[in-house]
Amino acid sequence: MSSRTVSEIGEHALISRITARLAMPPWVLVGPGDDAAVIEPERGALDVLTTDAQVEGVHFDRRFVPPDAIGHRALAVNLSDLAAMGAQPRAALLSLVLPGDLDVSVVDGMLDGLMTIAARYRVALIGGNITRSPGPVMVDVTAIGSVRPRRVLTRTGARPGDEVYVTGTVGGALVGLRSLQRTADDGVGAGLKTRPYAVECEEKYLRPEPRVRAGLLLGRNRAATACIDLSDGLADGIRQIAAASGVGIAVDEDAIPFAEGVREYHQAHGHDPVCTALAGGDDYELLFTARPSVRGRLRAVRQQAGDLPMTKIGVVTKGQQLVLRTASGARDLPAGFEHFR
Amino acid sequence: MSSRTVSEIGEHALISRITARLAMPPWVLVGPGDDAAVIEPERGALDVLTTDAQVEGVHFDRRFVPPDAIGHRALAVNLSDLAAMGAQPRAALLSLVLPGDLDVSVVDGMLDGLMTIAARYRVALIGGNITRSPGPVMVDVTAIGSVRPRRVLTRTGARPGDEVYVTGTVGGALVGLRSLQRTADDGVGAGLKTRPYAVECEEKYLRPEPRVRAGLLLGRNRAATACIDLSDGLADGIRQIAAASGVGIAVDEDAIPFAEGVREYHQAHGHDPVCTALAGGDDYELLFTARPSVRGRLRAVRQQAGDLPMTKIGVVTKGQQLVLRTASGARDLPAGFEHFR
Repeated sequence: MSSRTVSEIGEHALISRITARLAMPPWVLVGPGDDAAVIEPERGALDVLTTDAQVEGVHFDRRFVPPDAIGHRALAVNLSDLAAMGAQPRAALLSLVLPGDLDVSVVDGMLDGLMTIAARYRVALIGGNITRSPGPVMVDVTAIGSVRPRRVLTRTGARPGDEVYVTGTVGGALVGLRSLQRTADDGVGAGLKTRPYAVECEEKYLRPEPRVRAGLLLGRNRAATACIDLSDGLADGIRQIAAASGVGIAVDEDAIPFAEGVREYHQAHGHDPVCTALAGGDDYELLFTARPSVRGRLRAVRQQAGDLPMTKIGVVTKGQQLVLRTASGARDLPAGFEHFR
Repeated sequence: MSSRTVSEIGEHALISRITARLAMPPWVLVGPGDDAAVIEPERGALDVLTTDAQVEGVHFDRRFVPPDAIGHRALAVNLSDLAAMGAQPRAALLSLVLPGDLDVSVVDGMLDGLMTIAARYRVALIGGNITRSPGPVMVDVTAIGSVRPRRVLTRTGARPGDEVYVTGTVGGALVGLRSLQRTADDGVGAGLKTRPYAVECEEKYLRPEPRVRAGLLLGRNRAATACIDLSDGLADGIRQIAAASGVGIAVDEDAIPFAEGVREYHQAHGHDPVCTALAGGDDYELLFTARPSVRGRLRAVRQQAGDLPMTKIGVVTKGQQLVLRTASGARDLPAGFEHFR
């Protein structure tokens, strides 16, 4: 089977191949195989919906992103969006756009990755669509979650005096991507494999872990005033929260929890290490603001979040300025990643 | 502005361009511009969710499908899926994958088409995503609707003795597509424009009208035992209902309401007119089964559905055979459209 192509087995067989792997929770009344899926909304909760596509040649390079990582990322980036709203993930729809000459084993691999992370976060794959692509592989996922009315986290609630926090580490995914690219371009060993931090950064790029639990805890404990996920870099996240909330933000460069090797890597390649790291996307950490007067709530979140670090990196200010405070003075925040730019 | 490309204005400006046109109903608590949308589920109703992509070179050819029709179709095919479930459309998420050199006027045109049909069916565009494409234009829409628990229409309820109905006319979209293709390939006038039915068939292909009201009425009146929309042709619809319900279906060839010109067109081109018309997709009519003992319910649906014809074309049978009954005897049902085949 593994050497057959998508064209050889056809759309209906591909769909059967996927649905055979699925088990539906009781709140899914109509799953895959009908015109649409039917689910019971969670009682007393709101629906949270998001969609994000992974496109070959834009979001991933099949030379060095294995099929399972494509599937993992496709769902993870959407779960990360739900996490940033404080929502509990429930279900997903999968839209696959596949070239006819794609090997079926690649589809199986993508599903392996997607189903593994779906199982981890108890996400039911309730429907989707498969269609032919004239070229690139595209995986578009819509994720559905639920959140109680007063626990929604948005980008708009940051107020002057709030403290700014980020989960985990930042900048690692970009270094991981560069390492994978160099290995693919120049052959095995040309990447950063010899550096101790490379494997971790590559994994961060290939299989990011959405901060679902942290987002839920921030919402439940009403510990955050604003929240966003870092899909397009820390600088972009800061900019988005500030714009949506109508405030400024001052970030302390020394406080930013860069992943191990990030400064070293950028320095070795002659980049401004901080600017490059702040502009690099794909970290999928949460950036949030919290009122200092309710620090107890944040303490509760941290205790329940296990070993996920939450680092204070700055403060919300009155003006609309975005500033990076360094040992040698303040400078403007660099831009984040933007499609088409 | 109209001669600028997507790359020139960038992702953020494109998003602002879209969100500036939107107005949100009160049940949308967080609309576009945050990590995800937040909506109130309809009280006492179930959520219905579907996703379907329109891919350049597969679902549409930009030589003869104008931007507004791309946008119209992208939403219409999803509303058609909701209609087939008996659901009321509520909201949509729009995932755009666009090449950087695409003219912004094309994006505006797609939005015009999408927003026009969205307004007609009171669908709120609550979120989405824009990303770069390495080649083809892709428009992936997820539609969300609601339905009361006992009014859901599925494919699985057809029972022997039920009558088989189809709304509107079939086969027109395929003839319209062929007419548009010929004009594009061979120049103006080469298409079927001179034939009186061509314009109507082209319109059926370009801007299909989802049978939202008919689906709602069938569900509310509990008039149908099974329902599906005809995205992949009448033959495929028959096959899907029969397979899902574990029954056979016998269709009377003479009863099928082919659109005007369909038989004439296929005959003129040396095709078996009925087989070709049954296999052609894109009509987006509803195919449903109804118990003869509750014909009064169907009568009520017809009265409320206005001038949309609902034509009896066959009966559900005990065996699992799919038969086309013709003047000269019975023959097997032709296959429907399948991606990758």
